Amino acid sequence: MNIKLIANYTGNILRIEALFMIPALLIALFSGEQSSVIGFAATIAVVLILGSLFVLIKQKDDSFYAREGFATVALSWILLSIFGCLPFFISGTIPNFIDALFETVSGFSTTGGSILSDVESLPKSMQYWRSFTHWIGGMGVLVLMLAVVPMRGRSGNNGNSFKMLRAETTGPIIGRLVPKVKRTAMILYSIYIALTVVEIIFLLAGGMPLFDSILNSFATAGTGGFAIKNASIGAYNSYYLQTVIAVFMLIFGINFNIFYLLLIKDFKSILKDGELKLYLGVVAASVIAIGLNTMSLYPSVYDAFHHSFFQVSSIITTTGFATVNFDAWPTFSKMILTLLMFVGACAGSTGGGIKMARILMMGKFFKGTIQRMIHPRGVKPVTVNGRNIDDGVIREVMGYMSAYLIITVVSILIVAIDGFTYETTFSSVVACLNNIGPGFGMVGPTGNFADFSVLSKLVLMADMLIGRLEIFPILLLFTPSMWRRNK
Amino acid sequence: MNIKLIANYTGNILRIEALFMIPALLIALFSGEQSSVIGFAATIAVVLILGSLFVLIKQKDDSFYAREGFATVALSWILLSIFGCLPFFISGTIPNFIDALFETVSGFSTTGGSILSDVESLPKSMQYWRSFTHWIGGMGVLVLMLAVVPMRGRSGNNGNSFKMLRAETTGPIIGRLVPKVKRTAMILYSIYIALTVVEIIFLLAGGMPLFDSILNSFATAGTGGFAIKNASIGAYNSYYLQTVIAVFMLIFGINFNIFYLLLIKDFKSILKDGELKLYLGVVAASVIAIGLNTMSLYPSVYDAFHHSFFQVSSIITTTGFATVNFDAWPTFSKMILTLLMFVGACAGSTGGGIKMARILMMGKFFKGTIQRMIHPRGVKPVTVNGRNIDDGVIREVMGYMSAYLIITVVSILIVAIDGFTYETTFSSVVACLNNIGPGFGMVGPTGNFADFSVLSKLVLMADMLIGRLEIFPILLLFTPSMWRRNK
Repeated sequence: MNIKLIANYTGNILRIEALFMIPALLIALFSGEQSSVIGFAATIAVVLILGSLFVLIKQKDDSFYAREGFATVALSWILLSIFGCLPFFISGTIPNFIDALFETVSGFSTTGGSILSDVESLPKSMQYWRSFTHWIGGMGVLVLMLAVVPMRGRSGNNGNSFKMLRAETTGPIIGRLVPKVKRTAMILYSIYIALTVVEIIFLLAGGMPLFDSILNSFATAGTGGFAIKNASIGAYNSYYLQTVIAVFMLIFGINFNIFYLLLIKDFKSILKDGELKLYLGVVAASVIAIGLNTMSLYPSVYDAFHHSFFQVSSIITTTGFATVNFDAWPTFSKMILTLLMFVGACAGSTGGGIKMARILMMGKFFKGTIQRMIHPRGVKPVTVNGRNIDDGVIREVMGYMSAYLIITVVSILIVAIDGFTYETTFSSVVACLNNIGPGFGMVGPTGNFADFSVLSKLVLMADMLIGRLEIFPILLLFTPSMWRRNK
Repeated sequence: MNIKLIANYTGNILRIEALFMIPALLIALFSGEQSSVIGFAATIAVVLILGSLFVLIKQKDDSFYAREGFATVALSWILLSIFGCLPFFISGTIPNFIDALFETVSGFSTTGGSILSDVESLPKSMQYWRSFTHWIGGMGVLVLMLAVVPMRGRSGNNGNSFKMLRAETTGPIIGRLVPKVKRTAMILYSIYIALTVVEIIFLLAGGMPLFDSILNSFATAGTGGFAIKNASIGAYNSYYLQTVIAVFMLIFGINFNIFYLLLIKDFKSILKDGELKLYLGVVAASVIAIGLNTMSLYPSVYDAFHHSFFQVSSIITTTGFATVNFDAWPTFSKMILTLLMFVGACAGSTGGGIKMARILMMGKFFKGTIQRMIHPRGVKPVTVNGRNIDDGVIREVMGYMSAYLIITVVSILIVAIDGFTYETTFSSVVACLNNIGPGFGMVGPTGNFADFSVLSKLVLMADMLIGRLEIFPILLLFTPSMWRRNK
């Protein structure tokens, strides 16, 4: 394992984090939030010094394999979270360290599950930093580093960069938009920034204050879901604003390749995209089913379908915003939402969950199994978007699913020790592992994660990172054979 | 599709069913249960005539492929259930046809979930038939046909028989104990009968009445779980009797190959068996965890561990007997039981669930995925019991898991329409698909399935058969391309 090179990359990540805290520091200064100023200033100093030390480490060996890519990503995210929580902790905004860490991991992983019961009482700078973690976490900080930090020599080569891109972005098949990874990363971030700005403008147009527009756009773009109002998006009593957010959640749940195809005007490929069709189809079917099921709860059919659309969009993209308390909906609607939690958004989007692409492949694999049983000799290859999916990818999807099930099971068992209800226990793990945020019962949209034990919080934090990084980076970090010397 | 040959086999199955109803008819006669006599006599007549007509169908084409094997098994089980419920229905014991069918499907599939709230009020002959369906369903009626019905010509050839054996017995790899399928089937049934008789003797020795001993042994042997007392096995206030049943449940959850290896004194292979080790290890770990978790609920540690052992044994083997109301246990214990419901017993046993062998393979596959990520070039084959598992088997296990997930999801959504609680909805599907019987909430050990809608009952019945026949036979029956002409 090339630890020195990993430290170099990680150092760059920490310096980016310090840079990102500066706007929060300025907000704290302008709003006169004294303890917040200390919190951010102290953290920036520590992170900047440590990051710079890491970058200065000399390394001659530039071997960098897939496992180094996984390790860089996993370590970066863990350090980002530990240092990212310091402002909350030092300033006394969240005086319990584990809770501060939980809130930060929830932010970076774009989960959006909170331990706070009154988010409106947070200082403005803290609200800003909390929402901004979603925005960084959504597209990924390593992708940003690849886009903007100039790296010399072989440590900046395309192969290394691709290994990190692969480990941080989501989905079973990671394509480069263009051959150069640096340019791919730049295109991704440009689209990301542009869409965020467009959402801010749409929200401003509906009369939402600038500060709220920016923060809610951060949380939407990263499909995070931290609300800045206690009643989440339900606090904005405007169907226009709620619909804007619902539509943008859906947009950020789409594979960013699609936006690139739009830019280069390759509409034909978009129309053929099987994942996009499945995604929109599932959304439409769920909105209709829940709309019909909750019709009697609302004054009009229109209201029912409005809230159905918002909640479906929020859950399938794993954002976790709410306009109503969906924990009080009938079992049928809750079950649909539970399933959407697992399914998640498209691969290559900022959303979490298993991802539509994997569901699509499992479906095709399932169909193939049936075909093979009826006609054992007529084996057809599995195809997605007209391209053959080779056995290696199927194997990886299945390996992912096995790991996913094992982690779900182990997590549920540990969290169950706390003795909360069946529904709370089950849905808290599902909501964290899939980066949703709220679940049902105690962790429903009107509840929070504060009452779990420290052990459960640690497990749920691990689940959030495991979910965001698609299992293997974090898992490999704790596999002893990963750390053995290169042969 | 060779429908005529399938009809021949199915006819034989029906004649066996008629034969099996004779003891119930005799019990009805001796106990003076008039309406039961009519119920059984009428059903026997109908089934015998229909079965004989099916057997008489002339067929020259003797092509019989895997799909014919699946179709024979699926059709046989559906017809067995439809005709098997007639005595309940005709006699008026269960006046609602859907409920009568539910009870019968639950019996044959060895699920043991009931729609009855007072089983003690059933006529003796009906209790006998109800428990006996478990015994037939456990080892399978086609296996019995293969063992005892002499079949002439090519329709009785070894290849055809193996296809049916394969479709009815459980697990990812079906081995023949001996080259001849007829002899394999005979050995399996001999072991099955011998173990059942030994259990009856052990129960008699503990003072259980003969009738109860026989019926409880039927339900244990098939890992079915229909109780003949309202308080299930808790009604026998004897730790000896409860322990005998717990131990025999565990025994019937073991792969029958192991008993054959015992008979031929191949102890070395038994000690090496990975599935057996995993099975016993999971049982031990679960008993300890639940024992510790429920300690405070019972007068002594011994009581807690006794009930923990009984319930773990009952759930992991998918029997579903109860000595206490485990629905009232803490969440941690309930979650362990939920997981055991999915896991199930060993392949090649009478138990249901995903099966230990598949869990073992998934675990090894998972380990292999991790290894491959760290050392992409050093790919080692997956082995079970020292033998290489080829890609075809892994593919089949993964196909099974995909199908299993899809069926679980669809079933939960349909049952959720009834609007019972989250826990009831979820656990009723899990309990039926894995052939357990009781779940949690409304379908807990003190509840029953009576209040579900007809639609939910139909879905749960389908789940029970799908679970017992390991998904594909039933699924293929409803696949249009299955029925196209042979090319």
